[in-house]
Amino acid sequence: MSIANPINKTSQRADGRVVLSVDAMGGDKGPATVVAGLDRFLSEKTDARILLHGAKSELDGLVSKRGLSGRVTVCDAPDVVAMSDKPSHVMRHGKKTSMWSAVDAVRDGEASVCVSCGNTGALMAISMLRLRKVDGVSRPAIACLWPSLNPAGFNVMLDAGADIRADQDDLLTYALMGASYARNGLGIERPRVGLLNVGVEEHKGRAELKVAHDMIASAADKGEYDYVGFVEGGDLPSKRVDVIVTDGFTGNVALKTGEGTSNLISTLLREALTKTPLSMIAGLLARGSLNRLRKRIDPRRVNGGVFLGLNGTVVKSHGSADEMGVAAALSLSYDLAKASFADKLAARVASAALLAQDIGTEDTDHAEPSVGSGD
Amino acid sequence: MSIANPINKTSQRADGRVVLSVDAMGGDKGPATVVAGLDRFLSEKTDARILLHGAKSELDGLVSKRGLSGRVTVCDAPDVVAMSDKPSHVMRHGKKTSMWSAVDAVRDGEASVCVSCGNTGALMAISMLRLRKVDGVSRPAIACLWPSLNPAGFNVMLDAGADIRADQDDLLTYALMGASYARNGLGIERPRVGLLNVGVEEHKGRAELKVAHDMIASAADKGEYDYVGFVEGGDLPSKRVDVIVTDGFTGNVALKTGEGTSNLISTLLREALTKTPLSMIAGLLARGSLNRLRKRIDPRRVNGGVFLGLNGTVVKSHGSADEMGVAAALSLSYDLAKASFADKLAARVASAALLAQDIGTEDTDHAEPSVGSGD
Repeated sequence: MSIANPINKTSQRADGRVVLSVDAMGGDKGPATVVAGLDRFLSEKTDARILLHGAKSELDGLVSKRGLSGRVTVCDAPDVVAMSDKPSHVMRHGKKTSMWSAVDAVRDGEASVCVSCGNTGALMAISMLRLRKVDGVSRPAIACLWPSLNPAGFNVMLDAGADIRADQDDLLTYALMGASYARNGLGIERPRVGLLNVGVEEHKGRAELKVAHDMIASAADKGEYDYVGFVEGGDLPSKRVDVIVTDGFTGNVALKTGEGTSNLISTLLREALTKTPLSMIAGLLARGSLNRLRKRIDPRRVNGGVFLGLNGTVVKSHGSADEMGVAAALSLSYDLAKASFADKLAARVASAALLAQDIGTEDTDHAEPSVGSGD
Repeated sequence: MSIANPINKTSQRADGRVVLSVDAMGGDKGPATVVAGLDRFLSEKTDARILLHGAKSELDGLVSKRGLSGRVTVCDAPDVVAMSDKPSHVMRHGKKTSMWSAVDAVRDGEASVCVSCGNTGALMAISMLRLRKVDGVSRPAIACLWPSLNPAGFNVMLDAGADIRADQDDLLTYALMGASYARNGLGIERPRVGLLNVGVEEHKGRAELKVAHDMIASAADKGEYDYVGFVEGGDLPSKRVDVIVTDGFTGNVALKTGEGTSNLISTLLREALTKTPLSMIAGLLARGSLNRLRKRIDPRRVNGGVFLGLNGTVVKSHGSADEMGVAAALSLSYDLAKASFADKLAARVASAALLAQDIGTEDTDHAEPSVGSGD
């Protein structure tokens, strides 16, 4: 993995400063919102510096207006990746885009972590092309934070949509990477890992899930996690698990279903507290508590899906992220850079790769046709 | 389909009375709760009669104590299907169970709809074995109601977990059956149908979804629905679609994710409204509005997954359904019996079966390897 070396060298800089590479373009709200988020973030983290990628003509003004020129270096990249661009197209014609330039800054060791609000598929395609996959990873994953009843306040779910399928080996790799992320991102010493299925009974679910079930159980000690077995959709916010492993299709639908449900309830709650004079007074009296609740489940506060399994860390911020959302994604990136997360993950997966192959060949025979259905 | 005839004859009885077949056992809360739900339901629907299946020794007392003996006929069935029983086991050894007996009452034309709170996998297995699949259906589905911002207050999602996989032909059948259910169950003349995917862009998702996309679009006029194309998890409660089609694995995870999210928010909301004296007063003032909100998203009120694609209607109530939940499942069953839903669905699917095959063979060539990933 010669390509990983420059990154490893810089992820802990001699001067202790953290450099983040930020794609200013591609978000729904435009570069002004990204720079506003930068401002908010930099005022909190005084040892952070930023490489900002996009149209110099546009960015110089935004940066100097906020007096950030000392800590933000603008890297000129004229082109922009649109949300509608196909990843395959961007890989062929995207060399001059701000996204490509932002990823390359991590590849070339100029920054520790890359952050973008842009097209997820394109960002993953460019990241895989330029950073390459870590040895032992065949499918990188996107890990997201899920509001939960655990002390940390969040659970980790992966894959949230990097790839639309995952076989048993991928699911084992997700378990190892997710546990490492929970340790470094949420500070959970020995995370509890669960495998998402339509029921907790061992006879339920697809054949590859039964095999992955055994593989993830066998790898628990090596991966320094506890395996709680199959979990269901209702466990995503639950206390009985810290890391939920699933394929990227199911994970993406679950993520958006959770967001949609919480948006529905917020809408109905707003209606309920403006319906009658009494309830309006109630709404005013409870405003403080309700705002705390809203914050607790606000997707902007947990903004940032992390790409796992690449030689370098890439954080995908919500396309619709506002100033607060951008700042949240930057703080997450800062913490991961400080923890030298990319290096730790690579070491973890590399050491587990052989193990995975062993268990894989060993247990594949046990696969049975799946029976039953979810309750 | 000779087997379908007796059912078709009885689903509209000469005397206009509706007979429902109810499995008294197998629910988490036991037969007393089922009978309490019966009592609540029968007091509202005066032309309904019940065949109640379970241990006569136990049920006779419960029924007579509530003075329901006139309208409830107890059918003795000594055995009970446990939640942990494998469907394959129940199919071999379940002939004396209350679940089997309840399904057979529909098969033999003694009742129009069967209701059970028991093991979903076993109920589907017995239903398929005894009622048989409608011509043109290879995989029956479970349709559930999803709280939404639409006027009806609910959207229909299927498959919620009858089968863990579905190919393009199954997904087209689900679209036709779901539209028919939305028409008869929610009174939506021309339902809007969407296909669940990781993105709305046509290049996203699995290969079979791209084929199903074209098939469902082509069948819209024949099925008397409007096709809105791909939808995402966030659209499940949305106004832009009435029927969401997906495979049973994804649908089951989505359903439980939605329930889990709404439970999380209810818990946090309760905490928020008991934290400070002010918020406690607020909680009291807003109690009426908040109760209305709770009702709106209460799974007990939308209780009852409907099995679609069989010669006869089977309604699966939540295993943990309480008195109100059981009554809700019975009301849904009553409405479907009144609408002769089973006959209408069979006719709809039979007429569309050939169409499906045509489109299937016609469009399968267009399948492309899937690219991109969810955003």
